[in-house]
Amino acid sequence: MTGLTSNPVPGRRSLTQISDLSDSEIVDLLGRAEIYRKQELGTRRFSDELKDSVVATLFFEGSTRTRLSFTLAAERLGARVIDLAVSASSVSKGESLKDTCDTVSALGADAVVVRHPNEGAPLQIASWTSLAVVNAGDGCHEHPTQALGDLFSLSSAFEGVGNLAAKKIAIVGDILHSRVARSLSALLGRFGSKVVLVGPPDMMVDRPSALGAEFSFDLDEVVGEVDVLYLLRIQRERIQGGYHSSIDSYTRRFQLDQKRYLRMAPKSIVMHPGPVNRGVELAVKLPEERSLISEQVRNGVLMRMAVFSKILATASDDRRSQRGVFGD
Amino acid sequence: MTGLTSNPVPGRRSLTQISDLSDSEIVDLLGRAEIYRKQELGTRRFSDELKDSVVATLFFEGSTRTRLSFTLAAERLGARVIDLAVSASSVSKGESLKDTCDTVSALGADAVVVRHPNEGAPLQIASWTSLAVVNAGDGCHEHPTQALGDLFSLSSAFEGVGNLAAKKIAIVGDILHSRVARSLSALLGRFGSKVVLVGPPDMMVDRPSALGAEFSFDLDEVVGEVDVLYLLRIQRERIQGGYHSSIDSYTRRFQLDQKRYLRMAPKSIVMHPGPVNRGVELAVKLPEERSLISEQVRNGVLMRMAVFSKILATASDDRRSQRGVFGD
Amino acid sequence: MTGLTSNPVPGRRSLTQISDLSDSEIVDLLGRAEIYRKQELGTRRFSDELKDSVVATLFFEGSTRTRLSFTLAAERLGARVIDLAVSASSVSKGESLKDTCDTVSALGADAVVVRHPNEGAPLQIASWTSLAVVNAGDGCHEHPTQALGDLFSLSSAFEGVGNLAAKKIAIVGDILHSRVARSLSALLGRFGSKVVLVGPPDMMVDRPSALGAEFSFDLDEVVGEVDVLYLLRIQRERIQGGYHSSIDSYTRRFQLDQKRYLRMAPKSIVMHPGPVNRGVELAVKLPEERSLISEQVRNGVLMRMAVFSKILATASDDRRSQRGVFGD
Repeated sequence: MTGLTSNPVPGRRSLTQISDLSDSEIVDLLGRAEIYRKQELGTRRFSDELKDSVVATLFFEGSTRTRLSFTLAAERLGARVIDLAVSASSVSKGESLKDTCDTVSALGADAVVVRHPNEGAPLQIASWTSLAVVNAGDGCHEHPTQALGDLFSLSSAFEGVGNLAAKKIAIVGDILHSRVARSLSALLGRFGSKVVLVGPPDMMVDRPSALGAEFSFDLDEVVGEVDVLYLLRIQRERIQGGYHSSIDSYTRRFQLDQKRYLRMAPKSIVMHPGPVNRGVELAVKLPEERSLISEQVRNGVLMRMAVFSKILATASDDRRSQRGVFGD
Repeated sequence: MTGLTSNPVPGRRSLTQISDLSDSEIVDLLGRAEIYRKQELGTRRFSDELKDSVVATLFFEGSTRTRLSFTLAAERLGARVIDLAVSASSVSKGESLKDTCDTVSALGADAVVVRHPNEGAPLQIASWTSLAVVNAGDGCHEHPTQALGDLFSLSSAFEGVGNLAAKKIAIVGDILHSRVARSLSALLGRFGSKVVLVGPPDMMVDRPSALGAEFSFDLDEVVGEVDVLYLLRIQRERIQGGYHSSIDSYTRRFQLDQKRYLRMAPKSIVMHPGPVNRGVELAVKLPEERSLISEQVRNGVLMRMAVFSKILATASDDRRSQRGVFGD
Repeated sequence: MTGLTSNPVPGRRSLTQISDLSDSEIVDLLGRAEIYRKQELGTRRFSDELKDSVVATLFFEGSTRTRLSFTLAAERLGARVIDLAVSASSVSKGESLKDTCDTVSALGADAVVVRHPNEGAPLQIASWTSLAVVNAGDGCHEHPTQALGDLFSLSSAFEGVGNLAAKKIAIVGDILHSRVARSLSALLGRFGSKVVLVGPPDMMVDRPSALGAEFSFDLDEVVGEVDVLYLLRIQRERIQGGYHSSIDSYTRRFQLDQKRYLRMAPKSIVMHPGPVNRGVELAVKLPEERSLISEQVRNGVLMRMAVFSKILATASDDRRSQRGVFGD
């Protein structure tokens, strides 16, 4: 498949996984995000670029942070956002996912942002509806806008995506269950970065090489030689009963503590998709110039603006002319 | 009572039940909805017709779908919408319904959309406050905007409300507890349609003729001779312990399955207020031209726009002049 | 400390307690609220004064009424509002309050409205972040915008803040746990009003004089000689097991019933921050001219508009120029 997932409505497209994107589409998204950053520093944060669009959020797993990032991104482009609070909605009344999406579409939405526990759910939705679908995390599969936002942060930190080819990035934590690790490895591999996946054996993927990555079970082996340490959030419930008998035994080996921090290369930086479990993944107060964590949140909004702009701007133009043909 | 329920604020009116509406008001609402449909097909979906208005939603029973339909309708006219999430609000702190409405009004709302388990609650609210009240479903009483939206869908499907006089519509399911059945029968009777209510004896109203309708306990008797089959949503908890001992025994007699679908008249259509319980009310994949279900959702938004426009547009003009007199 | 709490972002300031405000700042806020009232009576309720601003609400205790008042105030000035529903958000995942605020700021918010069970939490947040912080109630400490809105209502009722010096105001109820009592006493004392705190001994503060107030354990002693009776909302769970063995014994002594109402001075008025427990604090239907309760809700929105305008308008201008310097 080349390009974003195509869609029955001309010009409207979906973003369900990194492999859907061509290199030039990724570069285009980075360029759009950069334009929004410049506008933000200028006089206006809000535009009416998507003023006739409606975006729905459909989160089958809670995440206020990610949902708000998408919401603000859409609103800053002038779109309206409706939230289908899943627990309170028809979904809990036994309505099928396809019927829900048909309803969302009939209510007037142009795009739906989906977080779902099942791998592939957003792709399935994209095949069913004429909505543009954005994957906001599907099971342990992908979280493409997080990875694209992180790429934008890295590209800014190293002054251009071209400079990422020479960089080494360690992703640390529960690799096996991390959709961020999966999307980010896929993306960084495309730009020539060396990715090393770090975590205990029971949290490692079977074939790291399939993600274009090396792997290590030992953070101390890796910490001194990377440009970026990307710490994943630990789900405490995944620790108990696994390889590590407790959070303590996990943190002893994989926490960024003072000792490990001092061994990091002088200009290396720390990333984390948030929210940080202080005292678990991270036990050190990072100087501002060594942390990209807040920048990741900021850039996440800008990248999601870029994604909405790309998948909806044309659709919005086409909707009128197309519906004008079929519906008038 | 003729016309919409009157209101202490001149020009501002309430919609609590179908009988409040004169025939010419209904035709006016259909005309307004048609104008919004045409605008939607044109260049703009959003206007600033109600740009100074605030609409509050007050749902004592959950319904994301209906709430969002009202929300989008108001927003597409430029109004602001606030949601008084009932479980989290003062209502759960023992505040009286009247005090809640006074607060909503004092906060600056012009209209309140109410769903309430008690029959007549919206009418009571309308008598207490200067807010325009829209009934979004009160107990087993009425759901007038759903019925008006459905009338709009039928009018479009049969190319004009004038053609409804010759049509026969079966409403199938738990008639006794259905506010949709009540509002829709009342409305269709006004336009000369033949309505037949279909369901098991313990789910039938005592006097169908009071709704201007015939009745039947046997879907098979009716299915071949109607122009429209309107399936109601089954509340599973209502089945157990009633006439039917199980969902299975209910569906055997009242589900639209393949066999019954094949017996339907060639150009007849299927409606459902949603969300559909697949495998209960409906067990067949309907061809697009035979189903109005998505169209009902789409038209529900347009009809609610028409209602807001009618009950608030004048109010908004009057508010200024009137407050200008009394308050300045 | 003079003036509103200062903030790392020039022009952006916080409002965490009444003592932060100088007399002239209070008068300025009253003046702004009055301007918004006049605009409301004129042609427009909505402006674009803060059209580039984003306000976040972060309520660790539920209060739909207060949250909506802030939300509408911000929206009427053209700002966007995001709600960080605390129970569903990262906060419940163990994220620290500081990290949450950093995220809110990085998402693009300019101000955060905080309600928190811990005294001083908003002040702490203001010291951590570059967000403008507005205290929407912290434990038993303060609720400054409620008190400022009430001051505005009193100032309007008595035709100018200058006339408050000659007035006597009784605040009745659970003084000990009331942040409204604390903020309002502090504020009224500044304008020369006589405040008398009325409640049972176990609900009285240790040193009423520290709040610039007198006190009484007997409402009957006070009710005939005040200009304003400000009834606090009773938390039923605070009654059981305290000085009063039941709600009944409390209401016998501190409820405004018909008998006490008839003893009030002819032009005296009743206030309540809402929501009213009918039959507890109040058991009489007040004539409109004797109750400020709805007016308090209305003026609460106008005063919060004044606060946002004061703490953000300059910030919004500065953000551009300042970021233009540091970030471009």
